[in-house]
Amino acid sequence: MINEEYKAMLGGKSVIRELSEYATARGKQIGYENVFDFSLGNPSVPAPQAFTATMEDLYAHGDPIAIHGYSPSLGIPEFKEAVAANLNRRFGMDYTADHIFPTTGAAGALAHAFRAVTEPGDEIVTFAPYFPEYGPYTAGAGLKLTVVPADTTAWQIDFDAFERALNPKVTAVLINTPNNPSGAVYSEATLRRLAEVLEAKQREFGHDIFLISDEPYREIVFDGGTQPYPSAYYGNTLSCYSWSKSLSLPGERIGYVAVNPRAHDAGILVPMMGQISRGTGHNCPPSSIQLGVARVIDQTSDLSVYETNMNLLYDALVRLGFEVVRPGGTFYIFPKALEADATAFCLKAKEYDLILVPSESFGVPGYFRMAYCIDTEKVERAIPALERFVAEEYGRR
Amino acid sequence: MINEEYKAMLGGKSVIRELSEYATARGKQIGYENVFDFSLGNPSVPAPQAFTATMEDLYAHGDPIAIHGYSPSLGIPEFKEAVAANLNRRFGMDYTADHIFPTTGAAGALAHAFRAVTEPGDEIVTFAPYFPEYGPYTAGAGLKLTVVPADTTAWQIDFDAFERALNPKVTAVLINTPNNPSGAVYSEATLRRLAEVLEAKQREFGHDIFLISDEPYREIVFDGGTQPYPSAYYGNTLSCYSWSKSLSLPGERIGYVAVNPRAHDAGILVPMMGQISRGTGHNCPPSSIQLGVARVIDQTSDLSVYETNMNLLYDALVRLGFEVVRPGGTFYIFPKALEADATAFCLKAKEYDLILVPSESFGVPGYFRMAYCIDTEKVERAIPALERFVAEEYGRR
Repeated sequence: MINEEYKAMLGGKSVIRELSEYATARGKQIGYENVFDFSLGNPSVPAPQAFTATMEDLYAHGDPIAIHGYSPSLGIPEFKEAVAANLNRRFGMDYTADHIFPTTGAAGALAHAFRAVTEPGDEIVTFAPYFPEYGPYTAGAGLKLTVVPADTTAWQIDFDAFERALNPKVTAVLINTPNNPSGAVYSEATLRRLAEVLEAKQREFGHDIFLISDEPYREIVFDGGTQPYPSAYYGNTLSCYSWSKSLSLPGERIGYVAVNPRAHDAGILVPMMGQISRGTGHNCPPSSIQLGVARVIDQTSDLSVYETNMNLLYDALVRLGFEVVRPGGTFYIFPKALEADATAFCLKAKEYDLILVPSESFGVPGYFRMAYCIDTEKVERAIPALERFVAEEYGRR
Repeated sequence: MINEEYKAMLGGKSVIRELSEYATARGKQIGYENVFDFSLGNPSVPAPQAFTATMEDLYAHGDPIAIHGYSPSLGIPEFKEAVAANLNRRFGMDYTADHIFPTTGAAGALAHAFRAVTEPGDEIVTFAPYFPEYGPYTAGAGLKLTVVPADTTAWQIDFDAFERALNPKVTAVLINTPNNPSGAVYSEATLRRLAEVLEAKQREFGHDIFLISDEPYREIVFDGGTQPYPSAYYGNTLSCYSWSKSLSLPGERIGYVAVNPRAHDAGILVPMMGQISRGTGHNCPPSSIQLGVARVIDQTSDLSVYETNMNLLYDALVRLGFEVVRPGGTFYIFPKALEADATAFCLKAKEYDLILVPSESFGVPGYFRMAYCIDTEKVERAIPALERFVAEEYGRR
């Protein structure tokens, strides 16, 4: 018999996807180059040539049985070793291959992290603004998602609100830095204080509270900065990663969970994730891609275009009088809309072929997200459209 | 807090995996060429050259952003269209691309099929002997797995036992043909009768009973035969497939669910599977592999070695007095052990460096599985070891 719960979910459409579909359809009418489509967080720069060359070499000279064979259920050792070495070198960690669980992207990583360190019925806390898929992701693990209201001044953490949200039913806290949609990079001070609060609450409640850190934008940080590594500040941390953005491989579904060696039960969490996979139909990410990524582990795509685009947009938005926090990373910016109803604002923008995503689905009213993973040339052409839009609709110039 | 259920699962080890690990360790002592390792169902023939050439072409001439970009959440259209056309041509079906849901192999396919057409707490019926992972797969979907005792005469279906197993709580029936571990190919007569029973029980119970058909061995059929297509016999069928065996791509995690257009609610089942993915962390199979497989959809690896090996082993086993049903396909054979305790039998065989899998975990006592996806030369050398084993331990010659 048809499952009624999933059938009921068919009603709910993703705002981002609907806008993206609209942009595609509109592009067919007027030429896609004339649609200023800021809807989707899809990398606009290619995978690095070194990755392509590595894969061509694997296909040309590798043994197909080895390249395409079953991954061991906890991942291919050389891939896991490469990940551990990369993280240790960059962030002063002491991972071994045994702390790395390869997954089908960050979605797969989060699915395993949630199930490993919570029980169905537990509460998990996250912070507005947040990636809307956290709703179905946590619901799928049987968790109640509690959202802490945003710190709208800097998109860091409102610690008073956070402490009010914590109670003994909370067994995990989910962060995403650099952040989709705000572009904020959690500072060292934020991460230190987060760790202090969690340590204190662990003692108070007498049980673990795991920090689940979703880090697909880790390598997209501006002004020569870096993202402080959350796991370095708090032992009970599971770091969830994907190469969707840093190597521009979103369709290849490759990522991992890295278990902090100081975490409680660190030695069994990766084998437990292997057991979790059996119940969800997950398997390791594609073998050939594990092998390819292992060989280019220290590389990224040329991510500089995102910083160029951010600066162009940020300057234009400030000039036009928008309230906006300058992003520290990602390829998103999250300005305040020019009216309280962000959906109404974005609907008006659509008339100027500006495809902006209203903020309600990110858990904050009154803002909008622009994904500027598009050609710089198009960002430049979008700015006059933005100027015309705010002049004609809101009298700003 | 650590999830206690998954922690408890760490105790249970897979018999097949333990034997495979033993074979690898033993190989390090005496040379792996001297270990007659029949434990693992891992393809021993390479992917066809046409697949490698296609992938090389994609990497050399394709746009990396397109090749590695996000798959649409219900799959890449050209892949779905290629699958539908292939199935329509071969089996007289009338699928469109909209009936095809791409998955990370058969494990991903089954995970979506179970969740789409059952509710947690329902019963699902399968038939001994069966793939041991059906236990965790169905448990993960909240289902109670009921196993119908085997038809040991031909490894088809004991229909009396099947009818006794059916009750109003059963909402799905799971078959696997060609079968792991027996090598049986369900005949047209079996599939017709299965459909008749299910149609009658649907009417009697007043609700759908979906047939979930696990078909990764579909193309490995001997004597020039073919596997009758289960979905052609019964409307409420979800066909689950993987290219792990037919294209020797087990590590690339690519398969699908094909929804029979005559199934109840056929039009919404694929979109529902897209919703299911959001809760389990599944995403579509790797984009590059979807594109590659679409272009070689009508090809297979050279599967003839499996038939050669089967004939060698079958003849030897018959000569040595084993009771054994000649496999119609797959790369498994499932003879009766020479003593009632199959585990004791396989332990003795290990002393002769013959790695055989006892049948208990397949839901039938007293048999053993040999996976002959190995070099023919090794099968030939294994036969004298088998002869010596049964002569010395059981006085057979």
